[in-house]
Amino acid sequence: MAKHVLFTPGPTNLPPEVLEALARPIVHHRSPEFAPIFKQARENLRYLFRTENPVVPLICSGTGGMEAAATSLLARGDQAVYVSAGKFSQRWGAICRAYGIDAHGYEIDWSLGATPDLVQRMLREHPAAKVVFTTHCETTSGSLSDIEGIARVVSGTNAVLVVDAISSLGAEPLETDAWGVDVVVTGSQKALMLPPGMAFVSVSPKARARIESCDSTVFYFSLKKALASLDEGTTPWTSQITMTVALNAAVDLVRRTGGVEAAWLRHARRARAIRAGCETLGMCEYSRAPSNVVMAMVPPDGIDAGRLIRCLRDEFGFTVAGGQERLKGRIVRIAALGHIDDEAILSLMTALEEAFRHQGREVEPGVAAAAAKRALSPPPTPA
Amino acid sequence: MAKHVLFTPGPTNLPPEVLEALARPIVHHRSPEFAPIFKQARENLRYLFRTENPVVPLICSGTGGMEAAATSLLARGDQAVYVSAGKFSQRWGAICRAYGIDAHGYEIDWSLGATPDLVQRMLREHPAAKVVFTTHCETTSGSLSDIEGIARVVSGTNAVLVVDAISSLGAEPLETDAWGVDVVVTGSQKALMLPPGMAFVSVSPKARARIESCDSTVFYFSLKKALASLDEGTTPWTSQITMTVALNAAVDLVRRTGGVEAAWLRHARRARAIRAGCETLGMCEYSRAPSNVVMAMVPPDGIDAGRLIRCLRDEFGFTVAGGQERLKGRIVRIAALGHIDDEAILSLMTALEEAFRHQGREVEPGVAAAAAKRALSPPPTPA
Repeated sequence: MAKHVLFTPGPTNLPPEVLEALARPIVHHRSPEFAPIFKQARENLRYLFRTENPVVPLICSGTGGMEAAATSLLARGDQAVYVSAGKFSQRWGAICRAYGIDAHGYEIDWSLGATPDLVQRMLREHPAAKVVFTTHCETTSGSLSDIEGIARVVSGTNAVLVVDAISSLGAEPLETDAWGVDVVVTGSQKALMLPPGMAFVSVSPKARARIESCDSTVFYFSLKKALASLDEGTTPWTSQITMTVALNAAVDLVRRTGGVEAAWLRHARRARAIRAGCETLGMCEYSRAPSNVVMAMVPPDGIDAGRLIRCLRDEFGFTVAGGQERLKGRIVRIAALGHIDDEAILSLMTALEEAFRHQGREVEPGVAAAAAKRALSPPPTPA
Repeated sequence: MAKHVLFTPGPTNLPPEVLEALARPIVHHRSPEFAPIFKQARENLRYLFRTENPVVPLICSGTGGMEAAATSLLARGDQAVYVSAGKFSQRWGAICRAYGIDAHGYEIDWSLGATPDLVQRMLREHPAAKVVFTTHCETTSGSLSDIEGIARVVSGTNAVLVVDAISSLGAEPLETDAWGVDVVVTGSQKALMLPPGMAFVSVSPKARARIESCDSTVFYFSLKKALASLDEGTTPWTSQITMTVALNAAVDLVRRTGGVEAAWLRHARRARAIRAGCETLGMCEYSRAPSNVVMAMVPPDGIDAGRLIRCLRDEFGFTVAGGQERLKGRIVRIAALGHIDDEAILSLMTALEEAFRHQGREVEPGVAAAAAKRALSPPPTPA
């Protein structure tokens, strides 16, 4: 059985192609050798983001990418609104508060995603809001927001729509340009199949105009500086050379395996399998707006989530995530992002059955794995 | 002849041990597998920094590390002083200005380093300054500041001494604790022999007290948050797992090859060889306070610095750096940081001879390489 397979919503397992790219000797970031690598990376990012807009590479975690977006778009005293539905969407509020941005949070039931109606109300109640912050998949709960509908609402206003797609980009459909999303933030260590260490931020012309006119005081995270450098084919600070090379290897892999749309379908297929397997064991999904990014599964009465997680890790080498904040101890979060094969999913299900038995539950051998396998099988051809 | 050898003051060549570490499968950053890796990395950083103080790992370039230090120690309206002697020391002023910190810059001749006398005057003229920002090696010029003497001045005051040792740590002697330096900032892509992508910041008790009481509004770069997490053996945001593993491999290599002191001696020995070789060609050193980090060499009259650099790169695969700001076009900057062997230095010198010939200069074959080789040879044993 494979050891140390990650079923976590980041970091995720790295494909051999990415590991090989990480191990290549370094070239200088201001050299003729790096120029075509960086050009390719910029094209690859636009491809992944489904946009013609520039996508800024930043050396930081996903949180840094969020900070770059918020502090480049808004100055002290500016108004903004954000949806709050878990640990990560709350972070929009925390970042804004730190920088004196007047951000109004709208808390919703954590088992739900943000809706166009809610965003419409937010903007009606705060017409001076310059930015609407949302979260595509809230990793705390696995809930998905209706970004397409929200973008329809926001694009008719002067406000800029910012989407945290840190855990979702590459796994869930997100049509940056077709839906009219102004700013999308993602991180390297999720469906992009890279180590942690970079964030990427796409910027629409509407958002760029706001950034150019913003009286912001940001330095390292200045998207204004980063966009100006990007226009000249470079970065304001040292580039993350190794990760840029690895990004190209990862996107090559996405392209060779059917492209972004095929990646979305793979994530949906795996999510169905994990759900089906878990349900045979009496686990039910916490979210009522579930994503294919991470499944937050509530164990049946009498089964302890923490013990399940420890057993999967210590006995079987599978890392899954627990609950955070108010969901701590209540759920098991399972993600199958990026580089995961069917066999690993079936092994995880077999291990999960065993973890239930460890807690005294009788489980018919193979029941979860069989359900997962059925979900992974191609649907029968219509007669 | 070796291709694509970097003689630049960052990024630097990666040793095979580091490349291998970068290619290892990833483990989760909040897992029992990562805990000992991160513990080892914290010890390794204290070892490199010559300190018992905590050393905070940050995902960012060196500039981000500088911003973290400045904005965690100082709030809007606070006073600070900094020495300005090139592109990188000027950055202390730019960061402070961006965040409304009242920083007073003292420009010195770029061919010199900062001295204790200067810092004494700075603090006499600005007694309310809470922080003194200095640069160990100014990478623009190769000039070295007298940090030991400066620390003696600052430690007798209420001010906190911050040293940008981004290019120098691991190459030039820097005794964080023995000299009493409060905050040292370095980057991963210099003598640490890692790719770009991380900064590391050591924090003395005096600096930590200032950080704890500072009414700063920083979020991602909060050293207060980072230190609190470090006390619990973790990071506030996602850890750079891959780079942490590689850091341990790099420091293992430093330990196995004689330790930090031996690394300092290696850099001094290589610097002597590069100087000796360049001088036979009529190049003279720009700096009158030269470091062993990077040698800024002024070509003789009639030899164009830019053409030398392009010839070394295009004909021989050696990357050296040009001048920046007011030194643009006037100097060739050669660094031999981290993972460079004697053979590469001799090859570089042979290539440099040829690059002079390309500009019509008659050069006795092997003269620069022979001078470098003599400097690399062990000194004669006393009779």
